[in-house]
Amino acid sequence: MGQDRTPTKRHPIGVFDSGVGGLTVVRALRAALPGEDIVYLGDTARVPYGSKSPRTVERYSLTCQQFLLDRGVKLVLIACNTASANALPALTAASPVPVIGAVEPGASSALAATRNNHLGVIGTLGTIRSSAYAKAIAARDPSAKLTTLACPLLVPLAEEGWVDDDVARLVARRYLAQLFAADPQIDTLVLGCTHYPLLKDVLGAVAIELAGHPVAVVDSASAMAEAAKEQLGSGANRRSLAGRLDCFATDTSRLDELAPRFLGEPLTGFELVDL
Amino acid sequence: MGQDRTPTKRHPIGVFDSGVGGLTVVRALRAALPGEDIVYLGDTARVPYGSKSPRTVERYSLTCQQFLLDRGVKLVLIACNTASANALPALTAASPVPVIGAVEPGASSALAATRNNHLGVIGTLGTIRSSAYAKAIAARDPSAKLTTLACPLLVPLAEEGWVDDDVARLVARRYLAQLFAADPQIDTLVLGCTHYPLLKDVLGAVAIELAGHPVAVVDSASAMAEAAKEQLGSGANRRSLAGRLDCFATDTSRLDELAPRFLGEPLTGFELVDL
Repeated sequence: MGQDRTPTKRHPIGVFDSGVGGLTVVRALRAALPGEDIVYLGDTARVPYGSKSPRTVERYSLTCQQFLLDRGVKLVLIACNTASANALPALTAASPVPVIGAVEPGASSALAATRNNHLGVIGTLGTIRSSAYAKAIAARDPSAKLTTLACPLLVPLAEEGWVDDDVARLVARRYLAQLFAADPQIDTLVLGCTHYPLLKDVLGAVAIELAGHPVAVVDSASAMAEAAKEQLGSGANRRSLAGRLDCFATDTSRLDELAPRFLGEPLTGFELVDL
Repeated sequence: MGQDRTPTKRHPIGVFDSGVGGLTVVRALRAALPGEDIVYLGDTARVPYGSKSPRTVERYSLTCQQFLLDRGVKLVLIACNTASANALPALTAASPVPVIGAVEPGASSALAATRNNHLGVIGTLGTIRSSAYAKAIAARDPSAKLTTLACPLLVPLAEEGWVDDDVARLVARRYLAQLFAADPQIDTLVLGCTHYPLLKDVLGAVAIELAGHPVAVVDSASAMAEAAKEQLGSGANRRSLAGRLDCFATDTSRLDELAPRFLGEPLTGFELVDL
């Protein structure tokens, strides 16, 4: 944590992910807390975490978090569902500053948004199989009716940048038709993957079209940014100057192409680090 | 290699892959050499190999091959592009029986099929980035004009079983339009991924539609089966009885759903092994 052992409001927020998808969390953070400095780490050399053992995921996640703590962050956001599902207790125990996971904020936002307690969650195969959202939602409201669906095509769609065209609409319709066939009453859809905010418009439009009633779309990246704002409270940096963003990655291939797509703004570059 | 140190024609053929995609190679083998017994190993606990370091891929591949050799196989087929690109020399050196890689048969078949030396290769990001096909084709014919394209949506499309519908056609058209825009003269298209044979019909139809001239589609799984037939020669098992198929995997989740899709026939089940 550098020289300073007690982070002040001037210190940055740390965000890590196994790849670049977590930049959607950075994007939401910069909208919610524009004055904050942010340090982002993408463990792109070891992506994807989803296919690794829980112990390996925990070990990698602890290394990522330590990298951020060494840069004096006042708050850690785990912008990776797999890391969050497998390593949140270990990360919290190892951190002197608060840690926010990827699943809990979206689960809370969804329960706040629904009017009939019929929720749908979409995510990667790994996230859906882990039941992370089912557990987080049941812990908060055991009466909620939850339908989940793995959507393996959505990550490559987002990475290709095919997010607002005929392919995106057709794929969204194919998946969401399955979800609404399982529960036609769903009124809140959780985007349980940091890649999905890029597809929020098309998923939202298709959901309403299929449901025939309003559907709230809860994007877990925005929910994490709101949770960070709440956590910081008076500890947030409220200067009018825009905060700086420092990005690090463990492998830089394809970053120039992908990163601006997820961040939603140009990027001056990633610094390569070896963890 | 069990008791018998010199495999005879009665011994099985061994095939391994990091996952289930290699079952398309088994399917092609069973069509080309119906009398052969086959032992298949999918290293599904450690899939995907594409995101691992070359040394790790080599180590895992050697373990897979040894598993097959211990079952007395007379020939090894590496039905995984990543394993083939990173470990073929090590696997060949460690094997007392012939080893056939995933890339070379497709490269040779493509050069035999083309009439104008304009070739297109599609594959995963990892395979295209490795330049494995570019190297194999240039080594055989330096005058060949090669255009390559990574198609990240095709693997999840094949795994979802969306192989003959509007989504498959639209995605195929999107990718192949890029390929033919780069070289409108392509007359031979190589499917450089073991998942792609499931999409052969739609890719072939769209290629011809876009090119406006005949396009030969070389599927690397069939090319590997032909190479196996040639390699065995008189050592092939020509009995009229259909050969048996024994399948092993290091993790069995999702296999019941995926395996029959790739194999093209029902499957009695995978035996779980710990490598």
